[in-house]
Amino acid sequence: MPSLRFPPTLAWHGTLLRLLDQTKLPAEEAYLDVENVAALCDAIKRLVVRGAPAIGCAAAYGVLLAAREARKGAEGCGGSQPVNWAERFNTLCEQLADSRPTAVNLRWAVERCRATALALHKAGKPIDLIEAALETEAQAIHGEDRAMCDAIGTHGASLLPAERATVMTHCNAGALATGGSGTALAVLYAAQARGTKLAVFADETRPLLQGARLTAWELAHAGIDVTVICDNMAASVMRARKPDAVIVGADRIAANGDTANKIGTYGLAILAQHHGVPFYVAAPSSTFDLKLADGSQIPIEERARAEISQPQGTLNVPPNAKVFNPAFDVTPAALIAALVTEKGVLRPPYRESIAKALSA
Amino acid sequence: MPSLRFPPTLAWHGTLLRLLDQTKLPAEEAYLDVENVAALCDAIKRLVVRGAPAIGCAAAYGVLLAAREARKGAEGCGGSQPVNWAERFNTLCEQLADSRPTAVNLRWAVERCRATALALHKAGKPIDLIEAALETEAQAIHGEDRAMCDAIGTHGASLLPAERATVMTHCNAGALATGGSGTALAVLYAAQARGTKLAVFADETRPLLQGARLTAWELAHAGIDVTVICDNMAASVMRARKPDAVIVGADRIAANGDTANKIGTYGLAILAQHHGVPFYVAAPSSTFDLKLADGSQIPIEERARAEISQPQGTLNVPPNAKVFNPAFDVTPAALIAALVTEKGVLRPPYRESIAKALSA
Repeated sequence: MPSLRFPPTLAWHGTLLRLLDQTKLPAEEAYLDVENVAALCDAIKRLVVRGAPAIGCAAAYGVLLAAREARKGAEGCGGSQPVNWAERFNTLCEQLADSRPTAVNLRWAVERCRATALALHKAGKPIDLIEAALETEAQAIHGEDRAMCDAIGTHGASLLPAERATVMTHCNAGALATGGSGTALAVLYAAQARGTKLAVFADETRPLLQGARLTAWELAHAGIDVTVICDNMAASVMRARKPDAVIVGADRIAANGDTANKIGTYGLAILAQHHGVPFYVAAPSSTFDLKLADGSQIPIEERARAEISQPQGTLNVPPNAKVFNPAFDVTPAALIAALVTEKGVLRPPYRESIAKALSA
Repeated sequence: MPSLRFPPTLAWHGTLLRLLDQTKLPAEEAYLDVENVAALCDAIKRLVVRGAPAIGCAAAYGVLLAAREARKGAEGCGGSQPVNWAERFNTLCEQLADSRPTAVNLRWAVERCRATALALHKAGKPIDLIEAALETEAQAIHGEDRAMCDAIGTHGASLLPAERATVMTHCNAGALATGGSGTALAVLYAAQARGTKLAVFADETRPLLQGARLTAWELAHAGIDVTVICDNMAASVMRARKPDAVIVGADRIAANGDTANKIGTYGLAILAQHHGVPFYVAAPSSTFDLKLADGSQIPIEERARAEISQPQGTLNVPPNAKVFNPAFDVTPAALIAALVTEKGVLRPPYRESIAKALSA
């Protein structure tokens, strides 16, 4: 993999989690230091940190912050296992897990870390040891995320032509959305590293412009040719440029392969089918939610009116008109040519290939 | 038709053309008074006035301004027919006709008025008389536009259910885009007038947000239930709400029915086909360009990078990323269920139905 030429999306500094404030890109590279659960929940809700895998990593460190906060709140009330620690800890973990509803990695990371902590707590281990274990667990999740990104990249690059490839993407499923090199964009970094000449079209991705602000920023920094288009130009670009692939990330994938991702993904998949362009979803195992038989059960977050009506302060929608602002949509498995995971490239029928890959 | 509760898009005041400045909506209802061809060309380029039929009406008054300007420049050099008048007049008419490349109504209106003027000039008529004829001709074009809008509305409403209808639209093909009640939106006003309860979803229409700023503004003023969505939400809304129709306007229609309209129309037509939603184009005869066999010959205007990269002053695209900004796309006739004109509803095969309607 190439050395990625941009600052870290999230970095643990022993007592605080430092987040690159993605709401300020590309105009400004600012950082936010987070030292408690409330601040992290706020950062997740405001999309300071976003992207399912990055939220998972941030939440893992958040569980450690929760443990420390639970101890602090209980200080003076107990010894090595303060009174009500577990109760306070669980409440904070729930707040964290509920900070956004669609990405499954968030709850996955919280539950994994919480289980570690509660098992030690049940065994009567001191809080110091529980906190040390949580730090190790968070760093493990972050490290696994990096390795997962690289593996997704390698598997996904095999789907692209070796010499030159034109690729479309939506939203940001890159280094900024993970603890590593990305999911969809990891495929591009891996292709670049092996020498493929890339031309990438990035949907700007309304309303929050993650494609224009974030994907364009990180691809341009990595020296990849990137062109930003409005979401509504994708069909024209597909007809004119005949891309080799559309590659996107995912926030949650059901057992049958139905995929929740940033709003607009579903429409893009229909356009790809119409133009005969293969549509790929790149995501780690932690994105799969096998409890859900299909995509109809995935909760879809609706966000604030002002994101559309008054972005960046300018009034764009008159007050007497309504606004509908779903943050995600569900792409039926039938429109997806392959799911690219760290375990390999999964093909239809997905119920079988997913079950097999995830049990391996 | 209902009385439309919004200020006039364009109004002739004897010596000047007063334009509602659509770049300032919905925050502000400001007007721009235009007294010469250069100012009108600038207003057309900056989209102070936009929408193919409205540009046509504005251009018709513009030819009168051109005639007056040609006389002024030549004053003192001749009698009732100043030296070089026709040359000056023609140059100004060309500037006007070239101010935007895609909408055919612009050149259509300029040529119609110019022909009137040049015929009188050739016959040796005095400039005063030519100017009076041009004022009459511009007012005729404006009046025909109003009647055309109402006829399109009546024909189009027959395509919607009588009691309640859910309709999607893109960009603004309304009163703000014409000299009358609109094209696509005239259909809604006509349906409203006969008592149909409407729910309208308006694509915001990036990059210039004509749907959010203009369509929402005029529909809400008319008391029609309107919900603004980002362009990339259209597929989700189609799946969830099963609209009765998508209705859009047009900037130019080729002899085979291929239709150039605001960027995003082509993608929307594909999404409509995928969801089994009929896709209608509403446009007057003056939008048809029978010299073009199909849509591949329609010139597509590309607009400035800053419309996408730095809208309303905020930097959204990093400087080292490219931007592609086509203003229009071409929807193949095969995706269009009907063309709604002032002469009636045209159905495929379009080459025949268009030729028949336009020769009638």
